[in-house]
Amino acid sequence: MRPIVFLSDYGLEDEFVGVCHMVIARSAPRAWVIDLTHGVPRGDIARGAQVLADAVGYAPAGAVFLAVVDPGVGTKRLSLTVEAGESFLVGPDNGLLSLAWDALGGVKRAYVIESDRVTLQPISATFHGRDIFAPVAAHLATGLSVADVGTPLEPMQMKRLQAPGATSEPGSVRCTVIGIDRFGNVQLSARAEHLHQARIDSLTELEVSTSGKHLSARRAQTFGEVPTGAAAVIVNSNGRLALVVNTGNAAAALGLGMGDPVEVGAPGRTGESFLKDSPTG
Amino acid sequence: MRPIVFLSDYGLEDEFVGVCHMVIARSAPRAWVIDLTHGVPRGDIARGAQVLADAVGYAPAGAVFLAVVDPGVGTKRLSLTVEAGESFLVGPDNGLLSLAWDALGGVKRAYVIESDRVTLQPISATFHGRDIFAPVAAHLATGLSVADVGTPLEPMQMKRLQAPGATSEPGSVRCTVIGIDRFGNVQLSARAEHLHQARIDSLTELEVSTSGKHLSARRAQTFGEVPTGAAAVIVNSNGRLALVVNTGNAAAALGLGMGDPVEVGAPGRTGESFLKDSPTG
Amino acid sequence: MRPIVFLSDYGLEDEFVGVCHMVIARSAPRAWVIDLTHGVPRGDIARGAQVLADAVGYAPAGAVFLAVVDPGVGTKRLSLTVEAGESFLVGPDNGLLSLAWDALGGVKRAYVIESDRVTLQPISATFHGRDIFAPVAAHLATGLSVADVGTPLEPMQMKRLQAPGATSEPGSVRCTVIGIDRFGNVQLSARAEHLHQARIDSLTELEVSTSGKHLSARRAQTFGEVPTGAAAVIVNSNGRLALVVNTGNAAAALGLGMGDPVEVGAPGRTGESFLKDSPTG
Repeated sequence: MRPIVFLSDYGLEDEFVGVCHMVIARSAPRAWVIDLTHGVPRGDIARGAQVLADAVGYAPAGAVFLAVVDPGVGTKRLSLTVEAGESFLVGPDNGLLSLAWDALGGVKRAYVIESDRVTLQPISATFHGRDIFAPVAAHLATGLSVADVGTPLEPMQMKRLQAPGATSEPGSVRCTVIGIDRFGNVQLSARAEHLHQARIDSLTELEVSTSGKHLSARRAQTFGEVPTGAAAVIVNSNGRLALVVNTGNAAAALGLGMGDPVEVGAPGRTGESFLKDSPTG
Repeated sequence: MRPIVFLSDYGLEDEFVGVCHMVIARSAPRAWVIDLTHGVPRGDIARGAQVLADAVGYAPAGAVFLAVVDPGVGTKRLSLTVEAGESFLVGPDNGLLSLAWDALGGVKRAYVIESDRVTLQPISATFHGRDIFAPVAAHLATGLSVADVGTPLEPMQMKRLQAPGATSEPGSVRCTVIGIDRFGNVQLSARAEHLHQARIDSLTELEVSTSGKHLSARRAQTFGEVPTGAAAVIVNSNGRLALVVNTGNAAAALGLGMGDPVEVGAPGRTGESFLKDSPTG
Repeated sequence: MRPIVFLSDYGLEDEFVGVCHMVIARSAPRAWVIDLTHGVPRGDIARGAQVLADAVGYAPAGAVFLAVVDPGVGTKRLSLTVEAGESFLVGPDNGLLSLAWDALGGVKRAYVIESDRVTLQPISATFHGRDIFAPVAAHLATGLSVADVGTPLEPMQMKRLQAPGATSEPGSVRCTVIGIDRFGNVQLSARAEHLHQARIDSLTELEVSTSGKHLSARRAQTFGEVPTGAAAVIVNSNGRLALVVNTGNAAAALGLGMGDPVEVGAPGRTGESFLKDSPTG
């Protein structure tokens, strides 16, 4: 039995996640389902894709990743099963799976889900998690053939997201907000090596700029060394730069949202180029 | 081992659900528990009953449904075990189980839970989920006899809820709000066939009225075809009519709450009769 | 396979809990993990310790308790594995585990987690739940030796919390707020026996005082006997006194927070001594 790793934007207030678990249990009794998270912001495909891609490296071998962030449910977007590494990915063709299949080593085979022997019948217009994706994940978890789910698809035909990048120049790193957690910690697309490339990795004081706002921030390793209320730049547990305010909300302090551009640099070195060049500046 | 499907209004912020899981695990090691939802609004028996009844059709065969929405905990209300179809239902005698036993094909046998060999001892006055219902569900999940839990009860003696209905006349459907999800989507008691009976199932534009408010709404199949901010009537994944506002909050837009009456009809055909006849109009 | 009982302040909005589940599953396939709660208020070690200690008595035999409320993650605080009764406790050395090991009968053996054969590598500075505690819990769940995790530690060297106490004098009980649930119910450090010792256990009307506020409260057994909007003192399911307002919020009504002192007594008997003696009065 393969483990199923389940991510969605369904939340836990309603019964959507529980119903998917029941559907899985019907065709894969005692299936082994791990809920990665159901707290992806509603309809936020980019965030869901990022969380999934960052998580695949921690998953048990041979997992079936069931991922549903699906604002286009019921429209003509395809339903996908993708084989990547030793794993399968199941979800809508809206880019949600695309960063994860790269993290797993690239697409081996891809299929459009079409078989009515694998999905529930009838298929509702609004809940493909229950009617299509959960049953297909259960089918794959029990070891049945991926070829049963539908028709092969040319990998290049699937929708892909561009993973947000980051650039370094001496004194400054420019990057993008790729996540905000419930504490207001801001995850950035830049990694520790970007600080190194910008030759600011040994500074103890940094400056963070976004459209119209600047903030002094310490360079810290952990929350514990940041004084209460102070801002800091840390390398988070995914190896990415993060802006934090100890016991405060960094996203609120800088007015930051998903996808916003951010510059991290030496004191006095950020902001100007940012305001000139940024597409949103 | 029978699967246990667990629904409650305990929420996940506190330890109530986790403690029930532990109690189940003590008497049914490696029990197979599926959390349907713990987000039923506090004390909302009608909503819990509806969610449970809509879900039973997706459950694995032979499930034990453990349901706890129990504002009368510690009072004289009875504790029940009900056999319906191939399944068991365990919970308080306040109507919570009654729509589900109908959905499962009706009551076969019913028991008042009384045996102190099955429940924890002592029984607290405020947490029967832990002390009574979870241990009984675990007992049934392991295949032990239902007769062990207590004394047979005449099914007619159990409290029942009336499932909210809907009525059609030419041009209009009158129904009731039976659920509001975290996105503000409003689930109605009417089904697709009520639109057909009212001869408005082919209209592309509908009107929705509630006490003192009117709203134009498109007839849509999916969220994807509703423009951002526009209202629509869809048939949701339970086969029921639902009012949605794409990326907005339909319940807030119409000031709707659980149990409120709603009329869906042809443009210009709702509201007047509504205001005349509605018990709350 | 030992069951793992998992408590944290990670919340369920983000992927932290799911990633820990995946890490457990990698080294302990089909591990049996029960989520006690992940809703401990952020960084609230005292509350986490209390919830864990109150729950251990309901856990299946031989459980591994994985507990992470860890504001000092990445600092010099030690990582612990503690054997107590037939169980193991895994978490940070900040007092979080200390009330639970007392509840389990005291420490048998204690270890500092140090082995890089048991933890993930590299260890991040901010997510020891994933990198240290979850892998160690999985190691113990599979039955491997506790001596593998690191170096023995003298139990007296571990940080301990003082469980908040309560005192009785004729007519009054003085105690501390040890928990507030999502409904605003206030859990107190006093137990039913304190009312008895104060000779107020047969009163039907009590008075509750905190810094500058007084409230009349009925003595009730259950929520069901408290009129809507009325305040009451009940003995909750953990055997502790609790202040509740039926369908209201007792914590808000009295302006109470964690750790605040509270006096419960006969009408007219509280408040004065409170204001004179209380450290916060």
